[in-house]
Amino acid sequence: MTKRSNWFFAILILLMVPPLNAEENSVSEATAECIECHAMVHPGIFNDWKKSRHAQITPASAVGVKGLARKVSSDNIPDGLKNNVVGCAECHTMRPDNHRDTFEHNGHDIHIVVSPKDCASCHTEEAFQYTQNIMSHAYDNLAENALYQKLQLSIIGTKKRVGGQMTYTPANEATKAETCYYCHGTKLKVNGTETRDTDLAGELDFPIIEGWPNQGVGRVNLDDSLGSCSPCHARHQFSIEMARKPQACKECHIGPDVPAAKVYAASKHGNIYSTLHQSWDFKAVPWTIGEDFAAPTCATCHMSLLVNGEGEMVSSRSHKMNDRLPWRLFGLVYAHPHPLEPDTTIIRNKDNKPLPVSLDNTAASSFLIDEKERNVRRQAMQAACLSCHGTSWVNGHWQRMENTIERTNADVLTTTNMMQEIWKAGYADGKTNPFDESIEKKWTDIWQFYANTIRFASAMGGGGDYEVYADGYYHLTKTMLEIQEWFSHQKKSALSNKNK
Amino acid sequence: MTKRSNWFFAILILLMVPPLNAEENSVSEATAECIECHAMVHPGIFNDWKKSRHAQITPASAVGVKGLARKVSSDNIPDGLKNNVVGCAECHTMRPDNHRDTFEHNGHDIHIVVSPKDCASCHTEEAFQYTQNIMSHAYDNLAENALYQKLQLSIIGTKKRVGGQMTYTPANEATKAETCYYCHGTKLKVNGTETRDTDLAGELDFPIIEGWPNQGVGRVNLDDSLGSCSPCHARHQFSIEMARKPQACKECHIGPDVPAAKVYAASKHGNIYSTLHQSWDFKAVPWTIGEDFAAPTCATCHMSLLVNGEGEMVSSRSHKMNDRLPWRLFGLVYAHPHPLEPDTTIIRNKDNKPLPVSLDNTAASSFLIDEKERNVRRQAMQAACLSCHGTSWVNGHWQRMENTIERTNADVLTTTNMMQEIWKAGYADGKTNPFDESIEKKWTDIWQFYANTIRFASAMGGGGDYEVYADGYYHLTKTMLEIQEWFSHQKKSALSNKNK
Amino acid sequence: MTKRSNWFFAILILLMVPPLNAEENSVSEATAECIECHAMVHPGIFNDWKKSRHAQITPASAVGVKGLARKVSSDNIPDGLKNNVVGCAECHTMRPDNHRDTFEHNGHDIHIVVSPKDCASCHTEEAFQYTQNIMSHAYDNLAENALYQKLQLSIIGTKKRVGGQMTYTPANEATKAETCYYCHGTKLKVNGTETRDTDLAGELDFPIIEGWPNQGVGRVNLDDSLGSCSPCHARHQFSIEMARKPQACKECHIGPDVPAAKVYAASKHGNIYSTLHQSWDFKAVPWTIGEDFAAPTCATCHMSLLVNGEGEMVSSRSHKMNDRLPWRLFGLVYAHPHPLEPDTTIIRNKDNKPLPVSLDNTAASSFLIDEKERNVRRQAMQAACLSCHGTSWVNGHWQRMENTIERTNADVLTTTNMMQEIWKAGYADGKTNPFDESIEKKWTDIWQFYANTIRFASAMGGGGDYEVYADGYYHLTKTMLEIQEWFSHQKKSALSNKNK
Repeated sequence: MTKRSNWFFAILILLMVPPLNAEENSVSEATAECIECHAMVHPGIFNDWKKSRHAQITPASAVGVKGLARKVSSDNIPDGLKNNVVGCAECHTMRPDNHRDTFEHNGHDIHIVVSPKDCASCHTEEAFQYTQNIMSHAYDNLAENALYQKLQLSIIGTKKRVGGQMTYTPANEATKAETCYYCHGTKLKVNGTETRDTDLAGELDFPIIEGWPNQGVGRVNLDDSLGSCSPCHARHQFSIEMARKPQACKECHIGPDVPAAKVYAASKHGNIYSTLHQSWDFKAVPWTIGEDFAAPTCATCHMSLLVNGEGEMVSSRSHKMNDRLPWRLFGLVYAHPHPLEPDTTIIRNKDNKPLPVSLDNTAASSFLIDEKERNVRRQAMQAACLSCHGTSWVNGHWQRMENTIERTNADVLTTTNMMQEIWKAGYADGKTNPFDESIEKKWTDIWQFYANTIRFASAMGGGGDYEVYADGYYHLTKTMLEIQEWFSHQKKSALSNKNK
Repeated sequence: MTKRSNWFFAILILLMVPPLNAEENSVSEATAECIECHAMVHPGIFNDWKKSRHAQITPASAVGVKGLARKVSSDNIPDGLKNNVVGCAECHTMRPDNHRDTFEHNGHDIHIVVSPKDCASCHTEEAFQYTQNIMSHAYDNLAENALYQKLQLSIIGTKKRVGGQMTYTPANEATKAETCYYCHGTKLKVNGTETRDTDLAGELDFPIIEGWPNQGVGRVNLDDSLGSCSPCHARHQFSIEMARKPQACKECHIGPDVPAAKVYAASKHGNIYSTLHQSWDFKAVPWTIGEDFAAPTCATCHMSLLVNGEGEMVSSRSHKMNDRLPWRLFGLVYAHPHPLEPDTTIIRNKDNKPLPVSLDNTAASSFLIDEKERNVRRQAMQAACLSCHGTSWVNGHWQRMENTIERTNADVLTTTNMMQEIWKAGYADGKTNPFDESIEKKWTDIWQFYANTIRFASAMGGGGDYEVYADGYYHLTKTMLEIQEWFSHQKKSALSNKNK
Repeated sequence: MTKRSNWFFAILILLMVPPLNAEENSVSEATAECIECHAMVHPGIFNDWKKSRHAQITPASAVGVKGLARKVSSDNIPDGLKNNVVGCAECHTMRPDNHRDTFEHNGHDIHIVVSPKDCASCHTEEAFQYTQNIMSHAYDNLAENALYQKLQLSIIGTKKRVGGQMTYTPANEATKAETCYYCHGTKLKVNGTETRDTDLAGELDFPIIEGWPNQGVGRVNLDDSLGSCSPCHARHQFSIEMARKPQACKECHIGPDVPAAKVYAASKHGNIYSTLHQSWDFKAVPWTIGEDFAAPTCATCHMSLLVNGEGEMVSSRSHKMNDRLPWRLFGLVYAHPHPLEPDTTIIRNKDNKPLPVSLDNTAASSFLIDEKERNVRRQAMQAACLSCHGTSWVNGHWQRMENTIERTNADVLTTTNMMQEIWKAGYADGKTNPFDESIEKKWTDIWQFYANTIRFASAMGGGGDYEVYADGYYHLTKTMLEIQEWFSHQKKSALSNKNK
């Protein structure tokens, strides 16, 4: 913030801000009881909450906000919740019969894991949209896809050398929970009860929860709901500011498979964000383009409710998050039109495999959005672009991105064709597991790392160094050459052995 | 900013800042017309500009500033520009006859692509200096160098497998524009006109520009000028703050070939910047060492006008950017004295190749700066160093950097000698293209990634983890071993085949 | 900081802050003399110091602070130091007879390199704790360990090709100083005197110091003390704010061997830090959980004095830094219980090698902390965790981390067993140097990069993308496969040669 604006704000705020309304801050009796111990035992949680909007506004006030500024979408907030701020007890005692981790705690029926269905009491629309988000199904989409399970085994499986060969046995739950399922979400399960001696209240009983802790986007909760709000709105501030800043997405979108955070940080948008964001307003709802911020973050393009300077809506809020996404850049093994349904376990390609494309890049079209829907989504995305860029700029960018999808898919096809010849010739075993040999891992590098990195760099940054030298075309080409030379060498060796 | 200083500033500013001068904010009639529609259609652009210095100060006022604080270097600003703030029309209607993308738009002759020659109307000296900057020639320096074109082909070329061999055909324009030429700049070309239906004004004609969008440092503009100011001063704030912050350079200087941003972020200077920069002044001109900032950013060492606490000049402003650079760390294929001219296509080494050194590390001396000039530049750079470090510190740092140039050049020479033996023995084909086989890519890794990373870490950080374990000596040594073993293996195989 | 809080602070501070106390700012005569020239010659140093706490408070005042807020631990500050602020002369003329770089400079006995023993005059306890920190011994721990010297040689050694083999000769001092010893610290040595012509005082003599500049954690100083305070508290602000921010540690903990900074930046804690830290208080002593900050930085968990909202101590300040560390995640070659003594050159494993474990993963237990001490340290660490997380959360996290230590150690063992078979079969020479051949470097990748990265991701982030796809399990598995295939290939070749 500039020096001058600091001062103007100070004056402005003095004139505008009413004294804190006591009623606004009314804490329920139950929450007051929680705070009595937990403010001391868990000062981090207590203070986080105290700074949160939840601690400042009652749902009754929040619902009263008119127009696009309204943050709470439910029209049926239960009476019991309306007139107290949202505190510990409001969330952790909600719908006690639905949560398998509900336990008696100092006279209250508490559950540990708050779920999107709890949040839906006030944030109904957002919770519903999230059920349509492919992320909410991230657990099953990985755990119940037989082919992806082979990939998982070939990465985190426990390795043993048996007779000069590497064998894999499935990873244990602890390893799974902090690798793939850290982001995808774990499946929670109550495994009995334990008694612990506490400082303030002596012996108390607590449920033992398998798969805990976890904040994955597709966590299977103890009320059978899917997902979690805290991957993006971290506990216990649940801040909109945090979800709008690009670091929120970095936790899961950083590796070479989905290098969104790295690509953004090296893009023009990321540069503008880094250098200027301290004077932006990350809390304003709706979010006014140009006034509240000068360059998009992840949320701007994929989620946020945006308006122009006249207050007209440019993009509607979305927790489905893919309604501005015609393409899924992430190759499996090719980039493809976005899946129709959030549950991708139902997809079968023409070879009856649970993949959105076949190995020869034929899309499993009946499970993917069609061209009409792709156009709707393209326009939805471009509405934000066009607020800062002319039409020819936006069209030029988009054409390059679609060219890149085509180009990288072609390179993946060339490589996959080699791989299939390798399997056919018996130089590797693609049947048992197509991902678990060294040469197969080079193939995986191609479609999972380099093609994806190139596409993310193109889509989010319009290109740059990441598209060429940092896991981009340079590495794609190099690895294709290595596979081709390995294959040639195998053929030569086979021939030479035959001739002996 | 500390709490106390916030308050002091507030008082100070209240006493000092005059009320906004209406005259200062006089927007030209033409610009007012632009704003009428575009404030609504392009709120991002409009608000960015509104926050810019361009929107606050007329050139007449800017020129009146005395001494080093003056930001506008022209003494001949055209009368028509002097007394309005610099708005849409001022830049986008300037020199209409010189721009091939000029088109009639609501009664005005507008061009889309504003060039450094337009900016030169006020910023004459900076625009001239930039023509001396090797960056301004980045398009031709890549596109018109036959050898580098082979490197380009071997990276972004379209790959096909033909008869068990990988072949390359040149990448299309879309791919080129978002890979190499994203940073180097594209060559813009008007390809006719299109009619588009607009929301506010019905059908309008617009030029179709090939190579657009682009903000590369060496963009070939539609008035034949070279370069762009927006890679560093992003549109439409054109902020000095942004250009002074290290993220501005990160867009192009992040990959393993030029890892300046990564190295800086892990250096002592980068650490001090990260932790303390929120209280620094990135807008002050001149920039006072110690008072305005406590550690250098990229701009500090390479570009900015610096003064000490007495207001005495320590370094003069430079948009040529290499007048403090004796050495070019970036190896082609060896680090070498900086080229004399920004146009490097004219360089020929002793083997008549367009390279600043030959493969045996003989410098193409007549095209590079001599020792005398290197000393001038060293002293120009060290003036900044010596403002925070004692002479023995600075000398020690510099000796290590020159030792590192020597050491890494020696390792590149050892590897290049192996490569030449490999070519000679016919195990790879260095004639058709010395960069397009797998073993040649390992050689490229040596001089383009590891040697460069080591040198950047040495020069910018005095060393550290990046020099050893993150694309540094560890990877350099490992790759040298792999090349040597590959070579041994080829010789053994050849021998064994002979013996059969 | 929110707009409202800015204003409240302004009012608050106006009411609370007494006018600057002249006495508080008393600069000694000697320091005033220094400043006379150096404020102009070294504006960076002068201004840094002026902003420091050293320039604002006399030791006498600092010592008067009661309770946990006291920052200066000595009860015996020499009288001569008590009543002036801590300026140039106070540190650079302290204990002149003990520093071999003491020289006469304008009538004062100045030394260039200030050491922790100088700082100990006021910060006695911190300096003592630091002598117990393994970091303070980082020079000898590397330079005096014969096995690690082989690793060093195999990375930064000067390479020559002799008879088709790669040979290594030790790196020169300049290279050593900016690679391994940049972080570990150099051994300083006075090598005579030089005369320099200075701008303000004509010809002056200065000591020539080998190994200078350096700010490594284990620097061997010219008064024989070990270490330096400036790696974390950078000169000349020596700010607690800087040491508490995560970038301070990044300088050395960034590469794939110790990727703490990368893992933190992609963790939930790092996300919260990145998005919210601008409103935190990094200067408060003691540091109140929840009030001063909402998520831990490196310092929070490893060093800082923490209290809860009632002011009760949660963790005591530690400059030993490992008293909350049961395990040393960094594998040599396996993760192991933390060493007992900071000097690790004394360690011998069961094979009499200077390693904390043997190659079959038997710990050198008598040199490592026992289970009891590990439990004490675990509880010390968990005290911070439990301030924001429930017990089941913390236990779940901890169990996963210990599972990961076990899992990664098992993978390293499998690989090390292969390596030993390879050495035994003569396919590589493990005797002369077990680190200097290409296949040995793959083995090094396993334990030094991938196993370490997995462990850091687990311990600091609870997992995520870095544990899988960014130098994690994916690369671990891939490299194990490559070693295994290389080994198989060697055996086959040997067999085939035999059969000829």
